[in-house]
Amino acid sequence: MFMGNKYKVLAGLLIGCWGWMAASRAPSTLQAGVPYPENFRSWTLIKTAVIEKGNPAFAHWGGFHHIYANEKAMAGYRTGRFADGSVIVFDVLEAVEKNNTLEEGERRIVDVMVRDTVRYAATGGWGFEEFNGASKTERLVGDSGKSCFGCHRVREGNGFVFSGYRE
Amino acid sequence: MFMGNKYKVLAGLLIGCWGWMAASRAPSTLQAGVPYPENFRSWTLIKTAVIEKGNPAFAHWGGFHHIYANEKAMAGYRTGRFADGSVIVFDVLEAVEKNNTLEEGERRIVDVMVRDTVRYAATGGWGFEEFNGASKTERLVGDSGKSCFGCHRVREGNGFVFSGYRE
Repeated sequence: MFMGNKYKVLAGLLIGCWGWMAASRAPSTLQAGVPYPENFRSWTLIKTAVIEKGNPAFAHWGGFHHIYANEKAMAGYRTGRFADGSVIVFDVLEAVEKNNTLEEGERRIVDVMVRDTVRYAATGGWGFEEFNGASKTERLVGDSGKSCFGCHRVREGNGFVFSGYRE
Repeated sequence: MFMGNKYKVLAGLLIGCWGWMAASRAPSTLQAGVPYPENFRSWTLIKTAVIEKGNPAFAHWGGFHHIYANEKAMAGYRTGRFADGSVIVFDVLEAVEKNNTLEEGERRIVDVMVRDTVRYAATGGWGFEEFNGASKTERLVGDSGKSCFGCHRVREGNGFVFSGYRE
């Protein structure tokens, strides 16, 4: 999850995460854990950006991304404390260039953070998962979120969340 | 409001609308009518795009735009019939290029459509307004929405709405 104008630093962190994930991932359709965030498209949009070619994060996270929060996570964005049950989604869509307009294309991945301080105590109280494309079952995080938390841990002062709500 | 892959045609329509508006607008902070859509940032995101330099709509609508719908308008997107009380917002933000990432910048304009088949019978049952920048009072549509409806009327079969919900 991103925040403000820190993309250059974040790009480095993200590509580091990705390398870690690529080395450790083991796609599985059977893994229990973080559920697919049903109905997240009706949640509040936190912010949007487009990662373009040339950005080191492009290969994995390139295109439009929209960050959504459920009601508990919205309270967390406002207070800085994320209660159990908070869910944040990082929704990545292709960016398609047409007639000097960037349009949204196919869904590439859906990243999810779920707050449960007991179940996910080993990863800062957040469970992490990444769903492939439009699939609700094909999971890309094979290490119980340790790779994700490896980057998110630097944001301890912000509840391990990178992004901030854009008014 | 936009739909699907019709940007090239829409660009022409939009620039036509804009010319019409530019010729007819009379900014006013006193005009009654379509209210500012308070709290629209918590509504459902319909879709997003970025209008870039080179697009004829860039001068007026350039940058990120997010389309939001309140609950009644969401029902309209699903059924094709927009009940009175439906509100649709077209929120335009600067697109700022940073390190091969497009980020959201300042708000440029907020366009609003409000459904009231009695009050706005002369413009297809929709009231139209455009608010300048971050202002909730500086109105840019000076002709009771006739200029806006001049373009939206081509979408009669879709309730005079251009956009479609992106899942």
